[in-house]
Order: sequence, then structure tokens, then C-alpha cells
Amino acid sequence: MAHSGFSGSLTSPRFDLAVDMGHPFLNRTVDGFLKIGAVGACKVAAEETFECLHRGDVSKHKVESALKKMCKEGAYWGTIAGVYVGMEYGIERIRGHRDWKNAMVGGAVTGALVSAASNSHRQNVVKNAITGGAIATAAEFLNYLT
Amino acid sequence: MAHSGFSGSLTSPRFDLAVDMGHPFLNRTVDGFLKIGAVGACKVAAEETFECLHRGDVSKHKVESALKKMCKEGAYWGTIAGVYVGMEYGIERIRGHRDWKNAMVGGAVTGALVSAASNSHRQNVVKNAITGGAIATAAEFLNYLT
Repeated sequence: MAHSGFSGSLTSPRFDLAVDMGHPFLNRTVDGFLKIGAVGACKVAAEETFECLHRGDVSKHKVESALKKMCKEGAYWGTIAGVYVGMEYGIERIRGHRDWKNAMVGGAVTGALVSAASNSHRQNVVKNAITGGAIATAAEFLNYLT
Repeated sequence: MAHSGFSGSLTSPRFDLAVDMGHPFLNRTVDGFLKIGAVGACKVAAEETFECLHRGDVSKHKVESALKKMCKEGAYWGTIAGVYVGMEYGIERIRGHRDWKNAMVGGAVTGALVSAASNSHRQNVVKNAITGGAIATAAEFLNYLT
């Protein structure tokens, strides 16, 4: 226990923050936002590091723009994950049992909401809903396979 | 048991086919290909149905092109899923335990292989590997959250 690493001590207070929200719906949404937001930010960090290594030059301006991009993409991934986790939890409570249909409906609603929020056309909202549902269903199936 | 639906009787022989392959690595890969390929094909079917309803006309030519698109996108989704499931299984056997790092490495290798197979530039292969790893890690985290 005394030897828990840096990563462990970084995650624990975040999880405590999520537990403090008072309602399981909010806890899951905030937890999803933070965890998947961190994954999105790490993805941008890895991409920008590769870009710098490939080009061979690092400037203050580039580091600043990379940090901004990390925050932006982290918030975007986190929002999508938060909406999806909250939706799936709500659908599970309404339907009363867990299966891949929760993931499909949750993914479809998330796709529709995210594309409606970004001022897409009505047709694109439906297409994004279909894509969101398909991706969530595929992820749920892969989860059982692995 | 006698009242199992069409979907149940359609899935069973496929699963038997997967079990017959003789090795768990092959079984999982084929199972992932078939299941996720079916999800991809259903996604295209839903999209094309919406397109027809929206435009209001259905012709033989359009149905044919929709079927072709379903096969193409189903095979694409299935291939990605098969490679990912096989990779994750292999990495799990090599490392000896299951955690999100398997998903991350599996996703990264899958992203690199798929983009290398489609004749991308070396730089895009690395970027797709990073994106694949990030998406697989996010899906693995969401799996624990929901």
C-alpha cells in the first residue's frame, strides 16, 4: 500500500470527487467525463509529441497550442462519454435490466444530442444517432468477446 | 426454448462455426469478425433505409448499391474487430494478466495494421495507432463505468 505509484495517487482524489456528487447518475457522468477526458487529452499529448519528434523543432508557441488542443479534445471526449454513461444508466433504470440494447439506445441518443448541440442539420443528427448506436453496440459486443 | 426468435436461430450456427475452428485465437477472431461485421452491416442498412424514407423513392439500383455498401462496410468493421480481438487475446497470453493496457496496445497495433494495410503514409500509421489505442482504452474504461 505504501508503494502505490504516482498514477494511483492521482486517480484517487478524482474518484472521491465523483463519489461526493450525491446521486449515482451524477457520479457516473462526472466519472466518465474525467476518465475519458483524460484519455482524450493523453491521445492529443501523444500525437503532438510525435509531431514534435518528427519535425524536430519545439517552440513555446507550439507547446501552448498543444496544451489548448489537449484541453479542447479532452473536454470533447469527456462530454461525449459523460452523456453516454449518464444515458446508459438512465435507460438501465427505466428498462430494469442490462443488455446490449441499453448500449445501442444510449449511443444513439448520445450521437443525436452531440450532433444537435453542434448545430448540425436534421439529417446529420439522424445519421450520427445511427453511427453512435452502432459504435456503442460494437463496443458492447467486443466487451463480451475479450 | 421452442419459442426462440429468428435472431437466436440465426446467431447459433455462426457461433458453432466459430467454435469449430480448433484454436481459441481463431475462434475469437472469427467470432469478432462475424458479430461486429453484422453490426456494421446493420448500421449501413439503417442509414440507407433512412435515406430512402427521407428522399421518398426506392429503385432497384439503389437497393443493389445499398446491399453492396452493407457487405463492404460489414467486412471492414469485421476485419478491424477480428484483428483487435485476436491482438488483445495474444497480448493477454503474452503478458499473463488482463487490464486496460492490453486494450491500449491491442488498439494501437490494430490501428497501425489497418492503416498500413490501406497503404497510408508512415506518419498516418503512427497517428492511427495513437487514435486506435486511445479509442480502445476509452472503450475499456467505459466498460468498467457502466
